[in-house]
Amino acid sequence: MPNVLIILGSKSDAPVAAKATALLREFEVTYEIKVASTHRTPELVRDIVTTSDADVFIAIAGLSAALPGAVAAATTRPVIGVPVSGKVNLDSILSIVQMPSGVPVAAVGLDRGDNAAILAVQILALKDPRLAERLAQHRKDMAEAVRRDSEELSRDV
Amino acid sequence: MPNVLIILGSKSDAPVAAKATALLREFEVTYEIKVASTHRTPELVRDIVTTSDADVFIAIAGLSAALPGAVAAATTRPVIGVPVSGKVNLDSILSIVQMPSGVPVAAVGLDRGDNAAILAVQILALKDPRLAERLAQHRKDMAEAVRRDSEELSRDV
Amino acid sequence: MPNVLIILGSKSDAPVAAKATALLREFEVTYEIKVASTHRTPELVRDIVTTSDADVFIAIAGLSAALPGAVAAATTRPVIGVPVSGKVNLDSILSIVQMPSGVPVAAVGLDRGDNAAILAVQILALKDPRLAERLAQHRKDMAEAVRRDSEELSRDV
Amino acid sequence: MPNVLIILGSKSDAPVAAKATALLREFEVTYEIKVASTHRTPELVRDIVTTSDADVFIAIAGLSAALPGAVAAATTRPVIGVPVSGKVNLDSILSIVQMPSGVPVAAVGLDRGDNAAILAVQILALKDPRLAERLAQHRKDMAEAVRRDSEELSRDV
Amino acid sequence: MPNVLIILGSKSDAPVAAKATALLREFEVTYEIKVASTHRTPELVRDIVTTSDADVFIAIAGLSAALPGAVAAATTRPVIGVPVSGKVNLDSILSIVQMPSGVPVAAVGLDRGDNAAILAVQILALKDPRLAERLAQHRKDMAEAVRRDSEELSRDV
Amino acid sequence: MPNVLIILGSKSDAPVAAKATALLREFEVTYEIKVASTHRTPELVRDIVTTSDADVFIAIAGLSAALPGAVAAATTRPVIGVPVSGKVNLDSILSIVQMPSGVPVAAVGLDRGDNAAILAVQILALKDPRLAERLAQHRKDMAEAVRRDSEELSRDV
Amino acid sequence: MPNVLIILGSKSDAPVAAKATALLREFEVTYEIKVASTHRTPELVRDIVTTSDADVFIAIAGLSAALPGAVAAATTRPVIGVPVSGKVNLDSILSIVQMPSGVPVAAVGLDRGDNAAILAVQILALKDPRLAERLAQHRKDMAEAVRRDSEELSRDV
Amino acid sequence: MPNVLIILGSKSDAPVAAKATALLREFEVTYEIKVASTHRTPELVRDIVTTSDADVFIAIAGLSAALPGAVAAATTRPVIGVPVSGKVNLDSILSIVQMPSGVPVAAVGLDRGDNAAILAVQILALKDPRLAERLAQHRKDMAEAVRRDSEELSRDV
Repeated sequence: MPNVLIILGSKSDAPVAAKATALLREFEVTYEIKVASTHRTPELVRDIVTTSDADVFIAIAGLSAALPGAVAAATTRPVIGVPVSGKVNLDSILSIVQMPSGVPVAAVGLDRGDNAAILAVQILALKDPRLAERLAQHRKDMAEAVRRDSEELSRDV
Repeated sequence: MPNVLIILGSKSDAPVAAKATALLREFEVTYEIKVASTHRTPELVRDIVTTSDADVFIAIAGLSAALPGAVAAATTRPVIGVPVSGKVNLDSILSIVQMPSGVPVAAVGLDRGDNAAILAVQILALKDPRLAERLAQHRKDMAEAVRRDSEELSRDV
Repeated sequence: MPNVLIILGSKSDAPVAAKATALLREFEVTYEIKVASTHRTPELVRDIVTTSDADVFIAIAGLSAALPGAVAAATTRPVIGVPVSGKVNLDSILSIVQMPSGVPVAAVGLDRGDNAAILAVQILALKDPRLAERLAQHRKDMAEAVRRDSEELSRDV
Repeated sequence: MPNVLIILGSKSDAPVAAKATALLREFEVTYEIKVASTHRTPELVRDIVTTSDADVFIAIAGLSAALPGAVAAATTRPVIGVPVSGKVNLDSILSIVQMPSGVPVAAVGLDRGDNAAILAVQILALKDPRLAERLAQHRKDMAEAVRRDSEELSRDV
Repeated sequence: MPNVLIILGSKSDAPVAAKATALLREFEVTYEIKVASTHRTPELVRDIVTTSDADVFIAIAGLSAALPGAVAAATTRPVIGVPVSGKVNLDSILSIVQMPSGVPVAAVGLDRGDNAAILAVQILALKDPRLAERLAQHRKDMAEAVRRDSEELSRDV
Repeated sequence: MPNVLIILGSKSDAPVAAKATALLREFEVTYEIKVASTHRTPELVRDIVTTSDADVFIAIAGLSAALPGAVAAATTRPVIGVPVSGKVNLDSILSIVQMPSGVPVAAVGLDRGDNAAILAVQILALKDPRLAERLAQHRKDMAEAVRRDSEELSRDV
Repeated sequence: MPNVLIILGSKSDAPVAAKATALLREFEVTYEIKVASTHRTPELVRDIVTTSDADVFIAIAGLSAALPGAVAAATTRPVIGVPVSGKVNLDSILSIVQMPSGVPVAAVGLDRGDNAAILAVQILALKDPRLAERLAQHRKDMAEAVRRDSEELSRDV
Repeated sequence: MPNVLIILGSKSDAPVAAKATALLREFEVTYEIKVASTHRTPELVRDIVTTSDADVFIAIAGLSAALPGAVAAATTRPVIGVPVSGKVNLDSILSIVQMPSGVPVAAVGLDRGDNAAILAVQILALKDPRLAERLAQHRKDMAEAVRRDSEELSRDV
């Protein structure tokens, strides 16, 4: 049974989704991944969301990125929105961030499938202490990597 | 039977809708007006659109203005989108203009309910010669008003 | 007799026009295509528009994209404007969207010749039921493609 | 024991926080509210976050809105960031959305304290079925309000 | 016989035009002022420009400010464009600045009718030495005013 | 004796200047070309401008493009400013367009050295009828090229 | 003998300067204040800067805010630039931030005369230990104020 | 003992840092260079800054560039912030410029590690006359290079 459902507005968003799935596998969080377009298959979006048991949704879309909002409209579980980069960039960012009152989307940064996954794990960790431990370890590993980078760079100078 | 269906994302968009209805009445085009939110009542949007006999839809929304796209996803008839002004403005403009391939929205300017109505009448006029005549007259009246403004301003100088 | 007249502000906009013509041919909508610059050949724009029997105009232009507005000023039939991408992008988008009261342009997304064509077909379909059927089929085909993409992606995961 | 900790970058952000607290009270979610500035009191931010038992953090800030990121850096629990409007607006939105890889913030819209609260409740509802029920009811109430608005507006026309 | 022809896209642009006319009177440069809309009265714009003996044109417009470009398309004499402020501002600025190759407009700042007038006088001064002298005097007067402001401010401190 | 003085903020702006010089040669307008930086050689800018007999100045600069304004501050003859493209683009455009009251710069489009040259010729043509004739011919040639492009494109369709 | 020289591009920038002078007086740092416009009085700017004994310069300007760069071009001592808000805001911010290589300006936030003063004091404190102590105290006072705000807000909830 | 401490938000910012270190070596100013992330290693940032004897800090970061502000929050010595370019650019620029009242960052231009170094040297030169001399010489060398570029370009024309 998946904990996270990832929905892409278009198959072309797959590289951004791959950043999310890599991290979810690292955290051993199960997920399912689907393509469903708010504008081409609005009922499919709704069907996927309303029949899903996922705890958290990650919706990834570019341009007039209506998908995260459409997912959020079909569920009261948390929805994370990932804007995908293109020729304008402010379009997908603002479309996902500027949701109206009452139906939030949790927007992460442009092309940040990775942060969508971490945020999903942070949410799931509230009821799964092992995930909380892994998050703490992941944070330590990142810090350690920064320290190594720093030493390496200092040495090179 | 309405020729135009106007959908507002929120009751607060009524002043922009009023610019549209004033012109539709002037052109004697029948219309119906509804409030329906993509994010709060997604199924209502779909129901309204799929059960409507309207030839043209006008969807008016601010912020992450997903409504015009949601209407366009539910019909293959023409959908005109009107971005509503707020604190950012580029949000509603880009959300409505930057639709993905295959599901167009005809975007007009910020708060331009008036132009949405004229565009709707232009579309309807393709099968109603009387509307075409009225549009020609309306254009002449506007031109005449510009000429009067010009004379008045020249005189004042 | 053409149903759609496509006007390019510059020969360099041809790739965006090609997206439109491919779809118009698919829908068996006749069209004519011209280059005419608002700034270099303003009278040519006017001549082309006022002597045309086209039901719908598609005007494609970049930078300070005045062409769609100039076409709209010369006719009361529907005009679809396509902003072309460049170094700034907000220039062509805002120039086409932000038309003044009384003379609308139906703006579609940046480089979205494809959506201009679909919107033109949607408008023509109001008086041609066969086009309406084809639009419905086209929408179904797009939805089917999304479903296939989804299955393919799910399988790969 | 608070479920949600709200941190304001400045006392002047209180009106945005009030939108959040009103909703949290409505959902009977306990919360605590603090002022702590990333730039004036960085250690206070850290102390507040690391000593808190809150499940979810809401950080509200304008300008170069570093507070949500600073809270996220001090915990692996979910952090919701609310950009506050000012003279530029893109500053607080982009500062909160564009977090680097590994340390997500869940950005909501400009001044959207209300959506921050709903998102917090959605997260908490994953382990509290009563909150899930209330969210479903809240969604129904919103939908009902839209329907009433629609009827009222239709009647007025 | 007017040296400068000022064209406003709309009567509502009159306050910006007033900044220009005040300075032209100060420099004793004759001018004529007209309202003519590119979109409502395209032929009027053309008629006004092609029948004018003006040496320099000043075109003032907001939104998708096509007027300066339309004037420039109808003459090879210098055209100064003044963007008028509104809800977006980048729309009129970019519409006037981003002219395509071959048909320049001399853009001045947002609502800068005053600078349009000075620029017109600078152009006319190339063949009228008295204007050159007045410009030099005007520059000295401005410098003197700055010096007085500086002394006043220093004294107040 | 040069009619036009072209000043580049940096040697790297030479490709934009080349668009200007190509056209000036075509119109047989003499010019001189210099590099002078507002920020690295402010006195050189001033010396070049105040000792020049040029009728018109073209100043080309990117980033915080202060050069056109600095040239304008040193002369009361017309100054044309050309913003050069880079990573931000709004920086050079707005720096050149948004001049304060009293000291205008005639801004042309991003990287539009060509339009700067045409505008310079238009200004010089006010006292040189042969240039006016050449401008008219140049406009006709451009129009003819558009017509040829149109025929070619129509034929290809 | 002044330690800080404050230059305003226009008398209308005085409210932003007042935020700086209030803090400089609080830190007992002497200052002098002048109005001098890069565009109206370029030589005055140069004279003021080159004849000044100030250790640090604060230059305050709006629109195409060339003043800080002009001050920086006339000295190799540190120059702090303060963008002043207006109708566009990105104009003054980008004009001051995006300086070319070799001649830096230290940009602070929009209308942030206060931060310009603190930054000036921080620079002066490198050779005046008493200022360093006062800065530490000022930071403590700010932190204390945040703590009081937090307590007050918590109590009110 | 280092005079300047350079902190990078990420190892990937090294090319921007290299522009700074090249100049610091040229001016014979000692420096130390570290990687430390506000979001991944907030305490490391604090430790590095509070234990450093550096007179001036240079903080280099992209995206939601909180690092310069975090450094400024940990010291009352001058902090120079360098925004790093990416897909949006306004994100890092505004995050660094728009600091709240009381804790300034001295922002330089996008990717301007070079200007950060010069600004640091200008600050250090206030107590080291030899640096002041070198800055004066560096300014002369730059001016000389501009003069050579100008002569070269003039010759080529």
